[in-house]
Amino acid sequence: MPNQDLALNDVFHALADPTRRAVLQRLGEGPASVKDLSEPFDMALPSFTQHLRVLEEGGLIKSKKVGRVRICEIKPKQLSKAERWFEDQRALWEGRLDRLDAYIEDLEKKGT
Amino acid sequence: MPNQDLALNDVFHALADPTRRAVLQRLGEGPASVKDLSEPFDMALPSFTQHLRVLEEGGLIKSKKVGRVRICEIKPKQLSKAERWFEDQRALWEGRLDRLDAYIEDLEKKGT
Repeated sequence: MPNQDLALNDVFHALADPTRRAVLQRLGEGPASVKDLSEPFDMALPSFTQHLRVLEEGGLIKSKKVGRVRICEIKPKQLSKAERWFEDQRALWEGRLDRLDAYIEDLEKKGT
Repeated sequence: MPNQDLALNDVFHALADPTRRAVLQRLGEGPASVKDLSEPFDMALPSFTQHLRVLEEGGLIKSKKVGRVRICEIKPKQLSKAERWFEDQRALWEGRLDRLDAYIEDLEKKGT
């Protein structure tokens, strides 16, 4: 089964939360410290770092310590992979519609 | 915060499972009965219908009874919405790289 791609489970799980999507969006603009990332959210720091952990487990971000500050950065590869999943589905879907069109055209030709 | 789109939570949650992604892929080829859909999976029917319920809650499929058979069909709108989320992120990301390019070009001009 081509969809048994386990990495996608973690990616979509990570994306199923508005805080985590907002963090990714922010990191799309460039790397940021955990402190700066957490600022817009009315959330205790342990809850926030738990969200970052889910993003790291999904392979969507990476982080490193720079002195006493932890800096996060986006990892676009898994995001692209998830986006590709949609493209694949759409290709299937459109292929089906094309075949349907061809079939109807064929029926019309036979009718005339 | 533009990412506080609660519908996306349910969509991505629904996609975070290989059985549910496989069902969507199958439905991309056309409507199917619950029985036909469940066939490739080594899973008790109640577990399988629970997966269908999550897909319905995410707005990704709809189902209707035709006689004694329940037929499922894909609803592409929410899938497109989720796909658009990725496009938006990529646009932000590429915008950032373009600005970076422009900045570097500017620095280089000043250098010469």
